[in-house]
Amino acid sequence: MKNELEVNIPLDVAPSARETYVDNYRTLTSDVGRVMLMAGDQKVEHLNDDFVGPDISPEDADPEHLFQVAAKARIGAFATHLGLIARYGADYSSIPYLVKLNGKTNLMKTDQRDPASRQWHTLEQLARIRNESGLKIVGVGFTIYPGSQFEHEMLTEATRLIFEAHQMGLVTILWAYPRGKAVKNELDPHLIAGITGLAGSLGTDFVKVNYPHVEDGKPAERFKEAVLAAGRTKVICAGGKGTKAKKFLARLHDQIHIRGAIGNATGRNIHQLPLDEAVRFCNAIYAVSVENKSIEQALAIYRENKG
Amino acid sequence: MKNELEVNIPLDVAPSARETYVDNYRTLTSDVGRVMLMAGDQKVEHLNDDFVGPDISPEDADPEHLFQVAAKARIGAFATHLGLIARYGADYSSIPYLVKLNGKTNLMKTDQRDPASRQWHTLEQLARIRNESGLKIVGVGFTIYPGSQFEHEMLTEATRLIFEAHQMGLVTILWAYPRGKAVKNELDPHLIAGITGLAGSLGTDFVKVNYPHVEDGKPAERFKEAVLAAGRTKVICAGGKGTKAKKFLARLHDQIHIRGAIGNATGRNIHQLPLDEAVRFCNAIYAVSVENKSIEQALAIYRENKG
Amino acid sequence: MKNELEVNIPLDVAPSARETYVDNYRTLTSDVGRVMLMAGDQKVEHLNDDFVGPDISPEDADPEHLFQVAAKARIGAFATHLGLIARYGADYSSIPYLVKLNGKTNLMKTDQRDPASRQWHTLEQLARIRNESGLKIVGVGFTIYPGSQFEHEMLTEATRLIFEAHQMGLVTILWAYPRGKAVKNELDPHLIAGITGLAGSLGTDFVKVNYPHVEDGKPAERFKEAVLAAGRTKVICAGGKGTKAKKFLARLHDQIHIRGAIGNATGRNIHQLPLDEAVRFCNAIYAVSVENKSIEQALAIYRENKG
Amino acid sequence: MKNELEVNIPLDVAPSARETYVDNYRTLTSDVGRVMLMAGDQKVEHLNDDFVGPDISPEDADPEHLFQVAAKARIGAFATHLGLIARYGADYSSIPYLVKLNGKTNLMKTDQRDPASRQWHTLEQLARIRNESGLKIVGVGFTIYPGSQFEHEMLTEATRLIFEAHQMGLVTILWAYPRGKAVKNELDPHLIAGITGLAGSLGTDFVKVNYPHVEDGKPAERFKEAVLAAGRTKVICAGGKGTKAKKFLARLHDQIHIRGAIGNATGRNIHQLPLDEAVRFCNAIYAVSVENKSIEQALAIYRENKG
Amino acid sequence: MKNELEVNIPLDVAPSARETYVDNYRTLTSDVGRVMLMAGDQKVEHLNDDFVGPDISPEDADPEHLFQVAAKARIGAFATHLGLIARYGADYSSIPYLVKLNGKTNLMKTDQRDPASRQWHTLEQLARIRNESGLKIVGVGFTIYPGSQFEHEMLTEATRLIFEAHQMGLVTILWAYPRGKAVKNELDPHLIAGITGLAGSLGTDFVKVNYPHVEDGKPAERFKEAVLAAGRTKVICAGGKGTKAKKFLARLHDQIHIRGAIGNATGRNIHQLPLDEAVRFCNAIYAVSVENKSIEQALAIYRENKG
Repeated sequence: MKNELEVNIPLDVAPSARETYVDNYRTLTSDVGRVMLMAGDQKVEHLNDDFVGPDISPEDADPEHLFQVAAKARIGAFATHLGLIARYGADYSSIPYLVKLNGKTNLMKTDQRDPASRQWHTLEQLARIRNESGLKIVGVGFTIYPGSQFEHEMLTEATRLIFEAHQMGLVTILWAYPRGKAVKNELDPHLIAGITGLAGSLGTDFVKVNYPHVEDGKPAERFKEAVLAAGRTKVICAGGKGTKAKKFLARLHDQIHIRGAIGNATGRNIHQLPLDEAVRFCNAIYAVSVENKSIEQALAIYRENKG
Repeated sequence: MKNELEVNIPLDVAPSARETYVDNYRTLTSDVGRVMLMAGDQKVEHLNDDFVGPDISPEDADPEHLFQVAAKARIGAFATHLGLIARYGADYSSIPYLVKLNGKTNLMKTDQRDPASRQWHTLEQLARIRNESGLKIVGVGFTIYPGSQFEHEMLTEATRLIFEAHQMGLVTILWAYPRGKAVKNELDPHLIAGITGLAGSLGTDFVKVNYPHVEDGKPAERFKEAVLAAGRTKVICAGGKGTKAKKFLARLHDQIHIRGAIGNATGRNIHQLPLDEAVRFCNAIYAVSVENKSIEQALAIYRENKG
Repeated sequence: MKNELEVNIPLDVAPSARETYVDNYRTLTSDVGRVMLMAGDQKVEHLNDDFVGPDISPEDADPEHLFQVAAKARIGAFATHLGLIARYGADYSSIPYLVKLNGKTNLMKTDQRDPASRQWHTLEQLARIRNESGLKIVGVGFTIYPGSQFEHEMLTEATRLIFEAHQMGLVTILWAYPRGKAVKNELDPHLIAGITGLAGSLGTDFVKVNYPHVEDGKPAERFKEAVLAAGRTKVICAGGKGTKAKKFLARLHDQIHIRGAIGNATGRNIHQLPLDEAVRFCNAIYAVSVENKSIEQALAIYRENKG
Repeated sequence: MKNELEVNIPLDVAPSARETYVDNYRTLTSDVGRVMLMAGDQKVEHLNDDFVGPDISPEDADPEHLFQVAAKARIGAFATHLGLIARYGADYSSIPYLVKLNGKTNLMKTDQRDPASRQWHTLEQLARIRNESGLKIVGVGFTIYPGSQFEHEMLTEATRLIFEAHQMGLVTILWAYPRGKAVKNELDPHLIAGITGLAGSLGTDFVKVNYPHVEDGKPAERFKEAVLAAGRTKVICAGGKGTKAKKFLARLHDQIHIRGAIGNATGRNIHQLPLDEAVRFCNAIYAVSVENKSIEQALAIYRENKG
Repeated sequence: MKNELEVNIPLDVAPSARETYVDNYRTLTSDVGRVMLMAGDQKVEHLNDDFVGPDISPEDADPEHLFQVAAKARIGAFATHLGLIARYGADYSSIPYLVKLNGKTNLMKTDQRDPASRQWHTLEQLARIRNESGLKIVGVGFTIYPGSQFEHEMLTEATRLIFEAHQMGLVTILWAYPRGKAVKNELDPHLIAGITGLAGSLGTDFVKVNYPHVEDGKPAERFKEAVLAAGRTKVICAGGKGTKAKKFLARLHDQIHIRGAIGNATGRNIHQLPLDEAVRFCNAIYAVSVENKSIEQALAIYRENKG
């Protein structure tokens, strides 16, 4: 039975917040410990590049589209910035939110300067809005760039905010991308395993990493290293850039069943579709990620009303 | 009826400040949801370049001119720095003020160093002066330069001050200009749409952007992208640099009726005129921006006593 | 009658401190709204260069000389750093002090690095010493370098400390010098007008600027721009570097009567003289600056005991 | 008798925390004043390089392996980051923990930029988790890089956190590595003696330094300088990189009995072994470090079940 | 009579701490207003270079040697870092301590980067240890490097900590060394006079400067400038690098009797001697500095048991 999912509560959760933490963890992991995270932080990270274009539904041009999908589809949580949540949350109060606590635009490239991203809202501010609004805020997200010359600043902010989030009963996800002039290959699987291990040391519940690139054609084997290195911190894989539905779901199935990822974070592949199709594709991803459905079952969900 | 304007209150407004926020929002938007913002932060941003010169009324050399215009003309709010407001506010207590919370001079150019602008007064200081003075402070403004190497500092300050301003019931406007060595074309409409989307993610009520430049001659179409990307965050267009009255009003009419801008922020085009003419021109802009008047009606208001 | 000088109280003065502010303003402006400021911050700004040398009285080598002059001469206030005030203040308790809140040495030149100067004592510390010592502290001073790459740091510190000083009933003077690699001509009158306008936006009561350099020989006309741009913020002119007494007083007379400066800040030209002569020269400056005396009357005061 | 170990309590330990400090000191030094520290901060410092590889037990790929070894072996404390402790501590509550309060990855090399490492959790956060969790936290660790251009930041953080840790009754260990473009030879024994002396001035109880390199073959003599320079601050030697067991134990024996080191910190040489062997090797190190056993006795402990 | 030394109490000493300040001042100046400061901060500033070597007593290798000398010799105070004081203070509770509040190693040279040194312990921490330990802490010391590109940071820290130290009744000594790429000749007497004047402006009771270098052979005359410029802030001269006893004492005698220095700070020349000789040499320095003894009398004290 779903409700019996045992949650490993880290010791930095305040005793008075343990129940809240368990509730939030169960919500985020759909009571089964698996994560379907709808990622919606691209309006900061990619500006408008992901929202208009030849293969993108015109509906996606309006940020409300993200909330409409998140409200109708089956997801663990919708990750986006507090500014948008504060603006749309009252009309979409059923969505479980994961507040992304930092972000940077894609204007400055690494060859000009190593990436830096600072914490936006304080946890104290987050506590106020949680209490005042009654929003279902299940957790927080934060991006770090290990290897950047600003790594030391980001590691400090990450550890402190994870601690404070846990104290309040919030679940944490780190987006962790090795980047900077010192990083030769961001997608090296051994490096990614180093990063998931680092994330565990920072105390996060989940770490989202990029899809590694493996020359020899055996990515599953190599990715296990990252899942093992993370230990009790669970690994979430990025959905990756536009891929056909079947191939996307098959890759996701591999990530979870062969490689041991606990779930996925998918953004563009969902919200670039029209609302109805986006919901169905989201549900297909949920079926694979959370419900142990096969690729075919998932495809059937996706195609239901497609004709 | 005007008073029935429904205000979408973001969730970071404290419950006890919701009424204040609605009042401020209605004042700023003239009870109809449209903004005529008189911008008066140029004494910092452009030093004295906008206040003396061959085509500028000698009256404009004195900063009090700004207050005289703002007090007599129809506007939503007058945006300027707290130093000036503290100095002139007692004599111009009828003006609704929007406090610009940062600023930089134009002495340092981008090719020397990317722009940085820090928060001046704290929100706690602002709360003190609001309470002690009884000034009609409806909101705060803040400038960010996405793409600058100091972007991360400005995004953090922006999100935190927007949150705190909302908590106090103040409305917020971001001045958002992509700038820095990494930014090739500040006026690219797709980039500006990225910036308005970013502004929404930061949680602001309004975002002021520059007039985009479009090669193909169809700016209205291209600007819609920015209005859509901003979602419930409303877009205000800059008045732009000195243009003849008719052309100025026509462009403004387009911005609002074709492109979907919620209003305008105009500074130099107003205050460089003698007081009486400045008031009439301001009212003409108000007529187009707020009252749905035609270009001809607005021109008539402007020319009323001109002979 | 002197006591009826009406003081324009800025709105950031706390209601409970309004009376203190008016008292301080009247003291600083000798009850007539004019400023004779004895500037004594050169031990930081110029190290010992202004205090020993062929044309400098040996008495000036000892910092107590500054206090002796300030105690005997007619001045609005003596501006120096808190360290010296704390050390000599008990013996010179009749002097009205203006505490200079920052400073930098002249060792690093602009071609090596743009100037930066940080706030020294906090306003909270200043409040403690004011309360504990009973010193007559009438205001605070702060130097900013617009155009420097550290401009943003200095503008933030300036606005916050002006606000806090006003809250406590202290009067404020900004020393404002455009400087840095981006500044081609520090003495350009249009630039100086920009700086006085900036100072008004920062909220200061007074701004001290350098004597502009004008090629065409009509400096008075050009300087009016700066006085106008400052609005209700009043402009104080630097005394400038060593000039004969008559020429000095004549220039001062022009600054005030033709150009509209509210007073002057003079340092080296006073304290480099022996005590008695320094006092007489100070009084002569006071006569021109504050008492509307003619150049001849002032010269008579200076020469009184000179033989 | 063990319990009679007299502990020199530094004066920055709060009177109310003196008993806690003595308990922690005795735990860390196994009641005899000697330290066997199991170092487990490599998941940050070396990413996954120490945890997978041809000569590394597959068990080591999972961070829980570290806790399993630490729980079963004889050690003074297990040093690792709070994130991991919070995650595994409830299941391994018998382990005495030393919380490493900073860390950096190995991605950025010194020839690109001098090393910087900032404090992660605050002492106030540490106090909260100690009180809420009941974990046996005996002390804190912090790494400094003297000679780096960021030395001044690290020295300030180190002194403040050592003071606060002592106030709370926690024991402190500094990891101190001279590094940066200014450092020509990190392993020079005279430099290392300088570093241990510096560590004493910073107030730490223990300082961990790297194994010095001595050309002339008399390392023991040269290392005494470092032990002397540290005074009452005790010196811990790094275990060093993979060496055969016998040679490792012999080197350790020398460090302690000839050179005066108070103990050792060993990481990779322990946890890269399978659990059972790791425990036996750890116990062998303990025998030499803490129990004054001979190299042969220690080897016997290591080989016990090896066959 | 000694007890009647009148102490000039600066006004930033809190009224409730005035008695403490007078006591501390009298202790530091041996009740006669003269300073014999034993400087012991070299373990940070010079690492181990001053503590081992061919002409250095082996006893000096152990930091406790410093405390043994300080406890037995006649001194005003022993200046060292809080880390060492916390460790040895309980066994040397008769020593009056002056806590050095910052420090940097000598690894980074000025041609690589200008010097920076940050405050270590806060005054609040210092207050806690003073109250909890009963240590005889008479004052604090802090080093500044005017002319460095980090000058502005150090001046701010210096002024604030001097103020806070005075509030608590502690005496202050600034170590002030002009240094950085902008400083051509650190030992120029006019520059040193600038620095002592700066120190007075920062509010310190004492300033320690380096022994100036004068080409023309009349150093005494030139040094008077520095004593005069400092005013009521008193000047302490560095002992300088290893010199024979007689020459050292003669130079010291000159510094005090011809140049007007208030005392000296001597480190290496004392502690590099064996304990007994160090005590005698220290007493000889005390005789000259504090007791107005002749060079011959001082030499007799030094040679007492020397044979």
